[in-house]
Amino acid sequence: MAILNRMIVLAARPEGAPQESDFKLVERPLPPLHAGTFLARTEFFSVDPYMRIRISDESYAEPTNIGDVMLGGAVGTVVESKHPDYHPGDAVAGEWGWQEYAVSDGKGVRRLDASVAPVSTALGVLGMPGMTAYFGLLEIGRPKEGETVFITGAAGAVGSLVGQIARIKGCRVFGSTGSDEKVAYLEKELRFDGAFNHKEVRDCAAKLEELCPSGLDIFYDNVGGPVSDAAFGSLAVGARVVVCGQISQYNNRTMARGPRMLWRLVAQRARAEGFMVYQFADRFPEGLRQMSQWIREGRITYRETITDGIENAPKAFIGLFTGQNIGKQLVRVARPS
Amino acid sequence: MAILNRMIVLAARPEGAPQESDFKLVERPLPPLHAGTFLARTEFFSVDPYMRIRISDESYAEPTNIGDVMLGGAVGTVVESKHPDYHPGDAVAGEWGWQEYAVSDGKGVRRLDASVAPVSTALGVLGMPGMTAYFGLLEIGRPKEGETVFITGAAGAVGSLVGQIARIKGCRVFGSTGSDEKVAYLEKELRFDGAFNHKEVRDCAAKLEELCPSGLDIFYDNVGGPVSDAAFGSLAVGARVVVCGQISQYNNRTMARGPRMLWRLVAQRARAEGFMVYQFADRFPEGLRQMSQWIREGRITYRETITDGIENAPKAFIGLFTGQNIGKQLVRVARPS
Repeated sequence: MAILNRMIVLAARPEGAPQESDFKLVERPLPPLHAGTFLARTEFFSVDPYMRIRISDESYAEPTNIGDVMLGGAVGTVVESKHPDYHPGDAVAGEWGWQEYAVSDGKGVRRLDASVAPVSTALGVLGMPGMTAYFGLLEIGRPKEGETVFITGAAGAVGSLVGQIARIKGCRVFGSTGSDEKVAYLEKELRFDGAFNHKEVRDCAAKLEELCPSGLDIFYDNVGGPVSDAAFGSLAVGARVVVCGQISQYNNRTMARGPRMLWRLVAQRARAEGFMVYQFADRFPEGLRQMSQWIREGRITYRETITDGIENAPKAFIGLFTGQNIGKQLVRVARPS
Repeated sequence: MAILNRMIVLAARPEGAPQESDFKLVERPLPPLHAGTFLARTEFFSVDPYMRIRISDESYAEPTNIGDVMLGGAVGTVVESKHPDYHPGDAVAGEWGWQEYAVSDGKGVRRLDASVAPVSTALGVLGMPGMTAYFGLLEIGRPKEGETVFITGAAGAVGSLVGQIARIKGCRVFGSTGSDEKVAYLEKELRFDGAFNHKEVRDCAAKLEELCPSGLDIFYDNVGGPVSDAAFGSLAVGARVVVCGQISQYNNRTMARGPRMLWRLVAQRARAEGFMVYQFADRFPEGLRQMSQWIREGRITYRETITDGIENAPKAFIGLFTGQNIGKQLVRVARPS
């Protein structure tokens, strides 16, 4: 008898902020395993802000359609295999999305060594968010020792790593985030030079002026909107704006308006550059090696916010937009075996 | 008896669009010539959009103050000299601003060879605007053969050169400008692949879509505002936005608002970079050599719009903001001797 595979599919394209009703838990029988494929059972899958774009009509890549299983990174264990290279018990990571099981031919699958790091890290510090922080900061931002770096969404999966990498590179590091608890996390645990709660600070521009009187050499933006406007006002000459994400804008129904910032780029001889992590895919081995080493040395730490149960994935996803998570938000489908 | 030197001084900081009353023609006696200095009589001086910023409180550099002579590039002839290296009759260019005469110690002065090109070109194609076009396009834009380049303010001193350099580099070149006469100039004389009058075209985004269906690889922006918004909507993957100027914004009393564009940079993995020409000052000899060669080969042509009489300089300057000029706007103070 075929195994029933539980999965979350897209039920409706969200209008504005996503609702739980935009998603549906369905059960579909797994297809039989063909030669050259294996079956993995999901332990964790990832919910990430970028998925908001990918389930919209405005997606930069082929959008997830109504009825499709939700996309995203997942880690799990091979439970059955007709593939010569994969065996039951192997830990693997892939892009099979929000489902309990996946059949794979191994394409895009990465083997994990659970003795090196917990497999969940393959979705965070040693996965897409880690590589986004690493290459975004180092290749787009190009930090130099002594420079000042400001990060929005600084307690998130990416931002929390950007700040730590910037510190390793000898930068002074500041961040904005959405709660006092997260401010404390940044200042005490991650040893940021300063952080503030952008929901509480009335005048972010004045706050930045106070924290970083000589301006921002690098502004790593995950958020967009008013706090990002304030940062543009504080750019130092020669600044680099690493445009990683704009989570405050993803739920907009129409293009939001804000202050025109292009002249700031001229006045400060500054650069704003958007990127997507897969541009650096051929260098992931280097990035993973370096991040692993920094973790071993205790120079990079990470947090995970874990939501249990596939049925709670929509809630976990929706929570990203109100800042429910610290560090990487994961959904745990099954306990690691 | 001392020569009376006529000059235009800043009478008031403009509020919004500059008015003639913001400037004043005054006469001041020239100081006696000391050893190591020379006296030059101005033939032409330059009026440029950047001066609007430099006479405001928001200037990126030390602003021109009330009562100061207006700043800017000028060319002229040495008429008297106590400097060992300069002799009467020498053609020179410098930054002595809007005045009939200047005393100089030679600092920042460039010698001109009127047999190579008319001296007025030292303020245009072989001067600051030429270098702005050359280094802005080549170093910030980094054009590759076959790419599509779109230029706002395309018939201006800088834009008209950017388009021609881009054509030399094998790009397809499109531009927006503010009159049908200028559209004809771009398409017929400069052989742009397409141009449009942004004051007449109702939907610039649709127009760009029609002209450049595969998007803009380079967007060289001199203007800002709605036509620039449309161009951001047409960026190709990997696009470079060369932010040279934002003339549509310089007269704003408060920061204007427009569509938030940062997400576009992410979606297109694009870069927007502001610059100022003096960043490339040490490479001006190379730029001038190359531009001179292209002029000799007939591959670069240029136009000048000449206003006669120092008393008409404010009018010529004000006209930049309504697009009165084609190519480089100059003020002729005296006929070349």
